[in-house]
Amino acid sequence: MTEQQLMNPERQPTLAGVERAAKKIAAILPQTPLLPLEVEGRVVWCKAECLQPIGAFKIRGGWHRLTDLTDDQRPRGVVAFSSGNHAQGVAWAARRLGIPAIIVMPDDAPTSKLDNTRALGAEVVTYDRMGGSREQLAADLAGKSGAVVVPSFDDPWIVEGQGSCGLEIREQMLALTGSEPDQIVACCGGGGLASGSALANPDARIVVVEPEGWDDMKRSLEGGSIVPVGDNPPATECDALQTMRVAPITFDILKGRNAHGLSVTPDEVHHALRVAFAKLHLVLEPGGAVALAAILAGKIPLTDHTAITLSGGNVANQLYANIIAGG
Amino acid sequence: MTEQQLMNPERQPTLAGVERAAKKIAAILPQTPLLPLEVEGRVVWCKAECLQPIGAFKIRGGWHRLTDLTDDQRPRGVVAFSSGNHAQGVAWAARRLGIPAIIVMPDDAPTSKLDNTRALGAEVVTYDRMGGSREQLAADLAGKSGAVVVPSFDDPWIVEGQGSCGLEIREQMLALTGSEPDQIVACCGGGGLASGSALANPDARIVVVEPEGWDDMKRSLEGGSIVPVGDNPPATECDALQTMRVAPITFDILKGRNAHGLSVTPDEVHHALRVAFAKLHLVLEPGGAVALAAILAGKIPLTDHTAITLSGGNVANQLYANIIAGG
Repeated sequence: MTEQQLMNPERQPTLAGVERAAKKIAAILPQTPLLPLEVEGRVVWCKAECLQPIGAFKIRGGWHRLTDLTDDQRPRGVVAFSSGNHAQGVAWAARRLGIPAIIVMPDDAPTSKLDNTRALGAEVVTYDRMGGSREQLAADLAGKSGAVVVPSFDDPWIVEGQGSCGLEIREQMLALTGSEPDQIVACCGGGGLASGSALANPDARIVVVEPEGWDDMKRSLEGGSIVPVGDNPPATECDALQTMRVAPITFDILKGRNAHGLSVTPDEVHHALRVAFAKLHLVLEPGGAVALAAILAGKIPLTDHTAITLSGGNVANQLYANIIAGG
Repeated sequence: MTEQQLMNPERQPTLAGVERAAKKIAAILPQTPLLPLEVEGRVVWCKAECLQPIGAFKIRGGWHRLTDLTDDQRPRGVVAFSSGNHAQGVAWAARRLGIPAIIVMPDDAPTSKLDNTRALGAEVVTYDRMGGSREQLAADLAGKSGAVVVPSFDDPWIVEGQGSCGLEIREQMLALTGSEPDQIVACCGGGGLASGSALANPDARIVVVEPEGWDDMKRSLEGGSIVPVGDNPPATECDALQTMRVAPITFDILKGRNAHGLSVTPDEVHHALRVAFAKLHLVLEPGGAVALAAILAGKIPLTDHTAITLSGGNVANQLYANIIAGG
């Protein structure tokens, strides 16, 4: 790929790009562990992305994108829109690289995610999740300053960066069990983690899991073309997965792999948080636990080498306490 | 060391023994991660032993001891006494090796620790923590069956096994930072983890942390000889650290290293649990958080390369929920 092709934001993400992202990420972040969990007498391998410095896998895509900015682009900075974890991922990378960052976040994002993003040195601009267009707001802000927009999934760098998680899963599982994963179950908002991990594991079955009522990737995969969430989705604690519409860049990869989609209920998510608490001693946020929830609910046939993502752990104290005490 | 010397339970633990233990443990358990935590603008490296399969470092000593049983000893089984985590460590190793295990546990141990020990296939016998002598009960049980007693810290294998945690810290910190730890802060009950980690890090400053009122190792180190906890210690949530009296095998190592002891309050422990929740996304039990509590309370001057143990995460849902919600 030429330099010009590489820098084209319209390019498609590739396995080579995932491998390049993984090298850059390995140079600054230790691998998160792949932890065994016994489920119905079989072992499910759990990738603990809640242990990333920002508490979620989003640090991967942020780092891959921002380290590829040109010398011209860096001083003009970046603008990102995010419900919280992508915000922190971009802010973390920006601080480390000395790049100015403006983050557009919904005004109902968890306070901890807003606070943490500011603590990482980013400027936070809030908008109304159900009313405003975050894409338009981000584009307007970027237009003023000449900053580069860093979307949370609709971007080849972001997909490749998140795919480094899938590549680590593959390497770690080989080292631990002698086999590659034959099935990867990923938490899905816009599908960056799922599609990137699909690129990294060309032979694995791919399953994506969403919260009930926000299962637009599932419905899109079933229908063969992108379907948005719609006008009146239910309230959900899975704030990290509240994506109104997926993008061709992630959907096409998952469609091409015959990915299977399914959804989980709030009770199933709560049970998953309690199992992660008691058996893995990991703090998961609801959106980071949907893959585990689907496994524990028996919604996915277990294979010999199933891996799942535990994608984030940024959850408010009171909500977490209520869920853990409610077991 | 001859075979006979090696098999003598009166022998002293050694660095060579720690290295031998570490090799055996590395063959079956992936390293737990060493996670960076920013404290007052400096990085403290946190060894996440709550991510072990039984949720605590005790799996190390149990594995090292049980894999060194002779062919004669194996079928007669083992007897261990423990407040919970050592119980699970021995039970886990026994199940994996097909060795019968009887575990003597206090009747006020957390229900989850009693349940988990039974779930690992061990026979559990309970006793009154403040009234009964667990050592005598274990000896009586072992006398009947010819089983080998596996103490929770007063044993050279156990000290060496727990020391493998300190050896991993040393290796991981070298890989991550280019430097060995110059200070290790360990949670302390009987002192197995602290003394073993001291053997593994001959040049590091050693600090041991205990709960207020249960700081007998601290007082013993200050006085130069072993002092028991005494008759009326306060109630504590740190059940893993309720040791009535330390043993020469751990005390002598720590005394020889001029280890420093200190204690933490319940509020300091609660704060540490909340920081581990919010910043590291790890579930810690109170006893597994005392080293972090001491660091966060500013009780230990930070060095350039400080490492601490987060030694366990087996905590009851309701207690944890109360602490996390109380922030």
